[in-house]
Amino acid sequence: MTPGNDPGAAFEPTARTRVRRLPERGKYDRDTVYAILDAGLVCHVGYNIEGRPFVTPTAYWRDGDRLYWHGSAASRMLRAQAHGIPVCLTVTLLDGLVLARSAFHHSMNYRSVMAIGDAEMVEDPDEKLAALRAFVERVVPGRWAGLRPITAQEVKATSVLRLRLEEVSAKVRTGPPKDDDADYGLPVWAGVVPVSITLGTPEPDPKLAAPDARPPAVQTIRLGR
Amino acid sequence: MTPGNDPGAAFEPTARTRVRRLPERGKYDRDTVYAILDAGLVCHVGYNIEGRPFVTPTAYWRDGDRLYWHGSAASRMLRAQAHGIPVCLTVTLLDGLVLARSAFHHSMNYRSVMAIGDAEMVEDPDEKLAALRAFVERVVPGRWAGLRPITAQEVKATSVLRLRLEEVSAKVRTGPPKDDDADYGLPVWAGVVPVSITLGTPEPDPKLAAPDARPPAVQTIRLGR
Repeated sequence: MTPGNDPGAAFEPTARTRVRRLPERGKYDRDTVYAILDAGLVCHVGYNIEGRPFVTPTAYWRDGDRLYWHGSAASRMLRAQAHGIPVCLTVTLLDGLVLARSAFHHSMNYRSVMAIGDAEMVEDPDEKLAALRAFVERVVPGRWAGLRPITAQEVKATSVLRLRLEEVSAKVRTGPPKDDDADYGLPVWAGVVPVSITLGTPEPDPKLAAPDARPPAVQTIRLGR
Repeated sequence: MTPGNDPGAAFEPTARTRVRRLPERGKYDRDTVYAILDAGLVCHVGYNIEGRPFVTPTAYWRDGDRLYWHGSAASRMLRAQAHGIPVCLTVTLLDGLVLARSAFHHSMNYRSVMAIGDAEMVEDPDEKLAALRAFVERVVPGRWAGLRPITAQEVKATSVLRLRLEEVSAKVRTGPPKDDDADYGLPVWAGVVPVSITLGTPEPDPKLAAPDARPPAVQTIRLGR
């Protein structure tokens, strides 16, 4: 059995992905990693240009053990990542402010994933088209079929990059503060202020010329959870 | 007049910070950069270990033209960043899903800042203590004074890093989708689904032994705006 065939199987931690600080927060099973990746929409991708690190926010999506992101074929970032160069994609979901009785034990509740590897440019037109469709469907399920069909020129003008999920780890903190024993009796409020992502009421384009068109049901958009 | 003395003055774009893709989204004035940095709480910091990029999410805060972040003195990340090595700190606030009439013109509304430079370890104990205090106060204004006082050992066990804001740019997208002229008449709903960060009702630590302690007023916590 290869790990890729079993959604519950774990990624093997490597020297680069094993969580060393607070190792109890490290998670390597696919269920945890997939759930975090599927709840996020924006990742931060790290890459080098002339030996210096750059971090760019970009939308991403997952298909099995592959992460995808995309952009203009003219993008400096994507050109820098296209030729099998090392990248690190990090996804972070902030879940709460953890207020302790001492400054030192203040913390945050969060879920994050770090994926390391060499980016690949998706060259196969079928995979590229399928990936772009999957991206739209990931954001608003059911939306692709109703859109003006994508053109060959638009596919050509879009670069799609792929990272195989091999070196991956998640890091998760949940729960109340962990204070020093001696501090629990202090008259200081301690606990968690929950943080979440909220979707508002869809705002129609002022140029909307489709009186019968209905906005997507916000409930179908999965973000943060 | 030096730019640092004028909050409204602009950062000078460099070859590394000038926004090239969609340059109309690039902003370099301090008011815009400061406002985004002060609305965020988690940045993604990029740095190299053995020539490979890593991206780690971490809390940060701003004091004038200095960004700070911190962590355990034992942290691999902070040790890797301590000795004047290049870093890139990126802050991203997602404001909306931009749904267009074609897949190609789908987008996101966002505010982001990228700051590039060489990280410095804060060695001066006074600056370190002032920075840690500013961090707590940035998250929950007024909280520091009520906490169990920080100890010298805790300050010692905490590394604080600093990046001078010199090479900085912001990138901002707002507003409805920009569709192809020919597509505006199509019967497709188009517009923006707003995305925001929400703070929930504070959840007391189950071990709270301070019946008179009140949770912070959520309204005082500035996050996302």
